[in-house]
Amino acid sequence: MNTFKKSINYIMDKVKTSLLSLNDEQIEKICREFLRADRIFLYGAGRSGLVAKAFAIRLVHLGFQTYVIGETITPPVRKGDLVIVISGSGETIPSVMTAEIAKKIGAKLIAVTSREDSKISKNADFTVKLSTECEDRERARLAPLGTLFEASAWLFLDGLVAKLMEMKGESEKRMKERHATLQ
Amino acid sequence: MNTFKKSINYIMDKVKTSLLSLNDEQIEKICREFLRADRIFLYGAGRSGLVAKAFAIRLVHLGFQTYVIGETITPPVRKGDLVIVISGSGETIPSVMTAEIAKKIGAKLIAVTSREDSKISKNADFTVKLSTECEDRERARLAPLGTLFEASAWLFLDGLVAKLMEMKGESEKRMKERHATLQ
Amino acid sequence: MNTFKKSINYIMDKVKTSLLSLNDEQIEKICREFLRADRIFLYGAGRSGLVAKAFAIRLVHLGFQTYVIGETITPPVRKGDLVIVISGSGETIPSVMTAEIAKKIGAKLIAVTSREDSKISKNADFTVKLSTECEDRERARLAPLGTLFEASAWLFLDGLVAKLMEMKGESEKRMKERHATLQ
Amino acid sequence: MNTFKKSINYIMDKVKTSLLSLNDEQIEKICREFLRADRIFLYGAGRSGLVAKAFAIRLVHLGFQTYVIGETITPPVRKGDLVIVISGSGETIPSVMTAEIAKKIGAKLIAVTSREDSKISKNADFTVKLSTECEDRERARLAPLGTLFEASAWLFLDGLVAKLMEMKGESEKRMKERHATLQ
Repeated sequence: MNTFKKSINYIMDKVKTSLLSLNDEQIEKICREFLRADRIFLYGAGRSGLVAKAFAIRLVHLGFQTYVIGETITPPVRKGDLVIVISGSGETIPSVMTAEIAKKIGAKLIAVTSREDSKISKNADFTVKLSTECEDRERARLAPLGTLFEASAWLFLDGLVAKLMEMKGESEKRMKERHATLQ
Repeated sequence: MNTFKKSINYIMDKVKTSLLSLNDEQIEKICREFLRADRIFLYGAGRSGLVAKAFAIRLVHLGFQTYVIGETITPPVRKGDLVIVISGSGETIPSVMTAEIAKKIGAKLIAVTSREDSKISKNADFTVKLSTECEDRERARLAPLGTLFEASAWLFLDGLVAKLMEMKGESEKRMKERHATLQ
Repeated sequence: MNTFKKSINYIMDKVKTSLLSLNDEQIEKICREFLRADRIFLYGAGRSGLVAKAFAIRLVHLGFQTYVIGETITPPVRKGDLVIVISGSGETIPSVMTAEIAKKIGAKLIAVTSREDSKISKNADFTVKLSTECEDRERARLAPLGTLFEASAWLFLDGLVAKLMEMKGESEKRMKERHATLQ
Repeated sequence: MNTFKKSINYIMDKVKTSLLSLNDEQIEKICREFLRADRIFLYGAGRSGLVAKAFAIRLVHLGFQTYVIGETITPPVRKGDLVIVISGSGETIPSVMTAEIAKKIGAKLIAVTSREDSKISKNADFTVKLSTECEDRERARLAPLGTLFEASAWLFLDGLVAKLMEMKGESEKRMKERHATLQ
């Protein structure tokens, strides 16, 4: 098999293992925080930031009042808001600072990271640990740098969308109506 | 005088002439559209897009529900919304398309442009003409490309902020409280 | 099994089927276009645009001169450049326009889409068809809107990164050195 | 005179005073750093970040290899690069951090700020002080928050463009050719 397909298989195996090992009850609890929050704020740096934005778009489709920290029109976070920070290492400086400030303000904080003992986890109300740190021989050439974490985070959040859709009683049709017509 | 200061003087003279010639009544009318609108959407391409975003930040400070078209969490424009498109030539393709779609949806449209007969103006409820097209010998070297239009648009919108602040009864203190704490 | 894990399983099955059915020879050909191109330009709207940006970051890590169309410092596309447009429907207006202009300029164009007969494909030198259109009963609730296409595109491009890494003789270590230190 | 025009006059007076008091020799020295640098990196948060991006677009037009810190494809800063940080207070956290890291790497650093004794100035090789702090009674209602600094920074950089154009022997025609065709 060539490197392209080996890489696809490798990434998908690791992502699947990581996501299917997540605790169902924790997922439920986390989703309830979305339903309870006044507003939802997303943050991530680099590729994790792109994953955060992709999720933000779906949250808008689901009817949540959602903001991406760092974008033009984002208001200040307040008590009662939910902040989700995505960072593989959990140590990226702006992510750590965002987590600290969110906590100080009294917002609820969910950390999505590969390290439970990282700096962003210390301030988090919930840490979703995506077990993507793996040092077998193939990782570096089939899934370099943060590839496994970022793909896992993308799919984790897609799964969360399906769960939130169900809990909120949303349909694809209504989500489509909330999709931007001008871009 | 060196080129730096000549350029500053040149740009500021042209900008001032262009802005002080605007009709007071039109400014009033335009500001009333802001107060009447459900939500406000901004659009511009390139440097005009940056001017649009800078204004969007101030509208958020002023307490308007504001979105930048093309950003992650922007919802669909609806009837009752106000769309402001900034384009020097008034012919930039995505700006023209945004104007057309906004009109078709039944939103109010304000065009900020240097050409009253441009494509975006045709769909606009109000055209703010910034008279920055000037072909004296010095322009190309002291204010290349869209420099005069973009500087005029930036300052025009700063002036509008002061006017909206007055009409809406806002203070600098309250605006500061709406300023994002995490970025 | 709860909806979260059902969704993960559903998306991963569809994505895997779609990606493993791709033709190895086409992948090779496409990768050679990357090595041959003067510069690489990425474009996509909405969530597809985020997928495009995530890939752009990795291309920078791999040492390719890479730009995202629509970002601040992007230069004009020229003959000799490679343009990659990502669009599930292949009909999103700015994506279609980007494809048309790229073709007219004489750049090479790769379309990543779920529809081979779409407008962007007509101008493309290569169309990568990700077979993610599926209308079984479960799709709408487990993978709403463009979810399957976007997840497939993300993983397709991760696989391409591994392949390009091999063809270009790059190591994870060197990729890391090209990672931005200030953000 | 109504508030709109009072605001325009007020802002333009303050901006002009601030910019015309700048030292010609310092402007020359700063421009020489642009010509000497390997690559140029811009940074600013919020509205100052938009000013930075508007300048970055012109630097691309002028043929400088230019990056905006925080955008998708930005490479790591190295010794030999020039970093320009724009911050009114000079204390905005990500701006201060960017300045610190730039200095540690050994890049040249220019700070554009209203406070010479601010944190970003401490690490700067050159501080451009825009004297926009003024506490007369009118400021808060005619130019709220950072309005004076941001308008001054926009025009300062427009003046720098004219100066750099002259020093580099660039024409408007050539700048136009470097303007992005796809956006």
